[in-house]
Amino acid sequence: MPDYFAADLNCDMGESFGAFHIGNDEAILPFVSSANIACGFHAGDPAVMKKTVRLAMKYGVAIGAHPGLPDLQGFGRREMAISPEEAYDMVVYQIGSLASFVKSEGGTMKHVKPHGALYNMAAVNKGLATAIAEAVYKVDPELVLYGLSGSELILAGSAAGLRVANEVFADRTYQQNGTLTPRRQANALITDHHLAIAQVVHMVKEGEVLSEQGLPVKIKADTICIHGDGSSAVAFATNIYAAFKEEGIVLSSSHQTRTTANNSGE
Amino acid sequence: MPDYFAADLNCDMGESFGAFHIGNDEAILPFVSSANIACGFHAGDPAVMKKTVRLAMKYGVAIGAHPGLPDLQGFGRREMAISPEEAYDMVVYQIGSLASFVKSEGGTMKHVKPHGALYNMAAVNKGLATAIAEAVYKVDPELVLYGLSGSELILAGSAAGLRVANEVFADRTYQQNGTLTPRRQANALITDHHLAIAQVVHMVKEGEVLSEQGLPVKIKADTICIHGDGSSAVAFATNIYAAFKEEGIVLSSSHQTRTTANNSGE
Amino acid sequence: MPDYFAADLNCDMGESFGAFHIGNDEAILPFVSSANIACGFHAGDPAVMKKTVRLAMKYGVAIGAHPGLPDLQGFGRREMAISPEEAYDMVVYQIGSLASFVKSEGGTMKHVKPHGALYNMAAVNKGLATAIAEAVYKVDPELVLYGLSGSELILAGSAAGLRVANEVFADRTYQQNGTLTPRRQANALITDHHLAIAQVVHMVKEGEVLSEQGLPVKIKADTICIHGDGSSAVAFATNIYAAFKEEGIVLSSSHQTRTTANNSGE
Amino acid sequence: MPDYFAADLNCDMGESFGAFHIGNDEAILPFVSSANIACGFHAGDPAVMKKTVRLAMKYGVAIGAHPGLPDLQGFGRREMAISPEEAYDMVVYQIGSLASFVKSEGGTMKHVKPHGALYNMAAVNKGLATAIAEAVYKVDPELVLYGLSGSELILAGSAAGLRVANEVFADRTYQQNGTLTPRRQANALITDHHLAIAQVVHMVKEGEVLSEQGLPVKIKADTICIHGDGSSAVAFATNIYAAFKEEGIVLSSSHQTRTTANNSGE
Repeated sequence: MPDYFAADLNCDMGESFGAFHIGNDEAILPFVSSANIACGFHAGDPAVMKKTVRLAMKYGVAIGAHPGLPDLQGFGRREMAISPEEAYDMVVYQIGSLASFVKSEGGTMKHVKPHGALYNMAAVNKGLATAIAEAVYKVDPELVLYGLSGSELILAGSAAGLRVANEVFADRTYQQNGTLTPRRQANALITDHHLAIAQVVHMVKEGEVLSEQGLPVKIKADTICIHGDGSSAVAFATNIYAAFKEEGIVLSSSHQTRTTANNSGE
Repeated sequence: MPDYFAADLNCDMGESFGAFHIGNDEAILPFVSSANIACGFHAGDPAVMKKTVRLAMKYGVAIGAHPGLPDLQGFGRREMAISPEEAYDMVVYQIGSLASFVKSEGGTMKHVKPHGALYNMAAVNKGLATAIAEAVYKVDPELVLYGLSGSELILAGSAAGLRVANEVFADRTYQQNGTLTPRRQANALITDHHLAIAQVVHMVKEGEVLSEQGLPVKIKADTICIHGDGSSAVAFATNIYAAFKEEGIVLSSSHQTRTTANNSGE
Repeated sequence: MPDYFAADLNCDMGESFGAFHIGNDEAILPFVSSANIACGFHAGDPAVMKKTVRLAMKYGVAIGAHPGLPDLQGFGRREMAISPEEAYDMVVYQIGSLASFVKSEGGTMKHVKPHGALYNMAAVNKGLATAIAEAVYKVDPELVLYGLSGSELILAGSAAGLRVANEVFADRTYQQNGTLTPRRQANALITDHHLAIAQVVHMVKEGEVLSEQGLPVKIKADTICIHGDGSSAVAFATNIYAAFKEEGIVLSSSHQTRTTANNSGE
Repeated sequence: MPDYFAADLNCDMGESFGAFHIGNDEAILPFVSSANIACGFHAGDPAVMKKTVRLAMKYGVAIGAHPGLPDLQGFGRREMAISPEEAYDMVVYQIGSLASFVKSEGGTMKHVKPHGALYNMAAVNKGLATAIAEAVYKVDPELVLYGLSGSELILAGSAAGLRVANEVFADRTYQQNGTLTPRRQANALITDHHLAIAQVVHMVKEGEVLSEQGLPVKIKADTICIHGDGSSAVAFATNIYAAFKEEGIVLSSSHQTRTTANNSGE
């Protein structure tokens, strides 16, 4: 048992586009340690990216690229039959576009987390996962790769030589095999903030989650995804931030914690 | 009078998009010293960018970003009323996207040349020119900024602390005030290859061009733009390359020649 | 002096795009007579278009196409150097896309109003105005063309044989020559709802407006533009609707009123 | 046995986009009876659509809409996880955009053929097929729906009350169950023009095709797809046109032949 617990709270940000506004970025930034910033394919545009990078730096939040499928209308949520090489290319492109804003603002990009359907496909498709991990590594081997806890993307990231962050979701329930309960099923979402936070604390401290079937399941919880959109997003961020303080969980970006983790032989 | 003459031949490349093919990149690369690679806004896509970066590295040609307006249908040739800040943002974004492919392939990006209407607007609009120069400088102060010889963009680049490359066109005629004869006028284009090449050699060696009005005009010719599209593009590239050899003009990317130039107090 | 006054209240609608939400369409529809529906170039997508057509039909509001420049990021507000032929083509395309939803829902499209920069350019550029009017006429000569009151677009529409609707703005001040006070000037906007409504009623009943210079200017006010976005949009729509009732101004789509107007020799 | 044979030769056209050129439309038009014109989602733009409509009318070729997925970079060939409602919406939109050019030029649109991945998904996915058929019917019940011979799309079109055209491919081999040999298999393509044409003539006259397994398979061949791109496209079109003449097969758009077919109880 460690002396203390550390976890990363991450949130998707910079999802506005031109005159179209989404999210509550500045209200949520004080309560998270990592921001995944959209790169213009599924959301975000150059102006939004610059503004969001500046905001994240203002609040000392770790900056990551959040590459998605080229589907603005579908917000990157519709799966597309792309080849691994196409996945590689679009990830290199998008990481670079965000890195350029980070560099020009004097910051450092810390991580990469695929978005939406690209994230979901990479969780189960080894070819895509390997291509994405290779893209990240080739652009910058210091970047931490975020993926669904225990997924193909996490395995591919480790295999490529990247530090990885196993991601869990605060407001989703889990199946006995460790996968998320599909959204179309009842009980997929945990709408009660207290229950959601209790589950997160349990995952961080005990490394397990109680499945929908009622039994404990082992799970790695390096980073927790907070949703930034919706009317209760800011309240939830505030609450989980307070709970972490109370429970002695140190909020720490994956870039920091993952260094230790990897050195210790992960 | 210098011991020898050096000049850069540059060509726009990577202008294909998906199934849509444009240009003769590989056929022209042996005869130029710099490739300006489209970044996905007016032409190019991630797959094309990667392929073109690899080709340029194979032929030892200096790689530059070729950012354009977000107008694929118009090929970036229709002027848009963008603000200087919008110009800044779209240049940072596009430079970064290409830089990412160059970095992941183990190369180095050397220069930036705005495309089409962005190039033309930046030649005469000081606000846009300054914003573009600042974008380039903030992303990487080692980059050389290409612009129309003697234009606002060249002035802004120098003022920002960048090395600059004054660009001339092989196949265009000039007015007495040093500007290009507008395309809609008769005699705007030099269609005879021999005449075009003779004009280029004269510009490089003598620093002047004979205007349409018949008088010599001073002009700086650090880099010469070769067109990569069209049925005679490869032939022209071959011919001008041969003429340079015969005339003792050393083909040399602006990145190399500009170092000297700036050190000597330009 | 007529027995009664009739005027059209129009509002831009269907400006959401995918996951990006803009406007208060259903809250405003009960208070207007015409809806200008975006067609996917500057805003709107096929799903939003279908939904908005259905809403407009539910409330008995006249449906018009609201074609814009192909610039989603700029919301169609950045002028682009398009040729008259390009304007013609993009208007034919966009009218058709909306007409298809109207037809498939069993409705009838009544009017066309260009959006944003396309509207502004067509107000002063005769070539563009003529091309747009021709596009509308060739697709359906029964359509009413909306344009800035007294502008080149109105003249071109009449010349092409179309019925036209002279548009005025409730919340903008006017110059002595009948043009809108540019937005960048102080006093361009009328923020007080009572003053804005009083100006509209005066324009409709008296055919004149008091200029910023303090003198009356003749103006045709066939249709009044209400803004659908912003926190006070619904309140303003409600208020102007009530004021019209009180003042005896019959709310009537331009399609209806313009028939009479044209028959009487306009 | 009929007194004579009639068949439709169709070709995808209008696939250029802005400065990007694809196809040999005008060279092929004299030899086909139907043109499927791209509508701007996977290829084509408003200018190209207008030009292609004019060309088709000049050569008396039946005009059809060729709607595709919103994926210009992938040329509409990458499957996307769209819902039936999204398919419905994008088909209504695209049909309308082309119909507008046809109407403004004084022509009549005759058919609709989905493109690429949308075509392939609709061939096997009943939900998508039904949505597409409904979209076509609601916009114009007189339109003929083209689909893979015997596929879900053909069944859905008939069920919706539309006339349908069973499409076969001249240069593809067939499996014993009547499906196309997948492109990734050897022998998927028939590269010999004579063999391809002989297969088409056999399908039209005998209503069967010899499968890769060597046995005859029943197949309806109302319309034959000719590819318009590639170096031998024009030669092939010329050859099959000549073969039809020699074999007494009357070239006739599906709009004409399908009328009879449906009246006779299909």
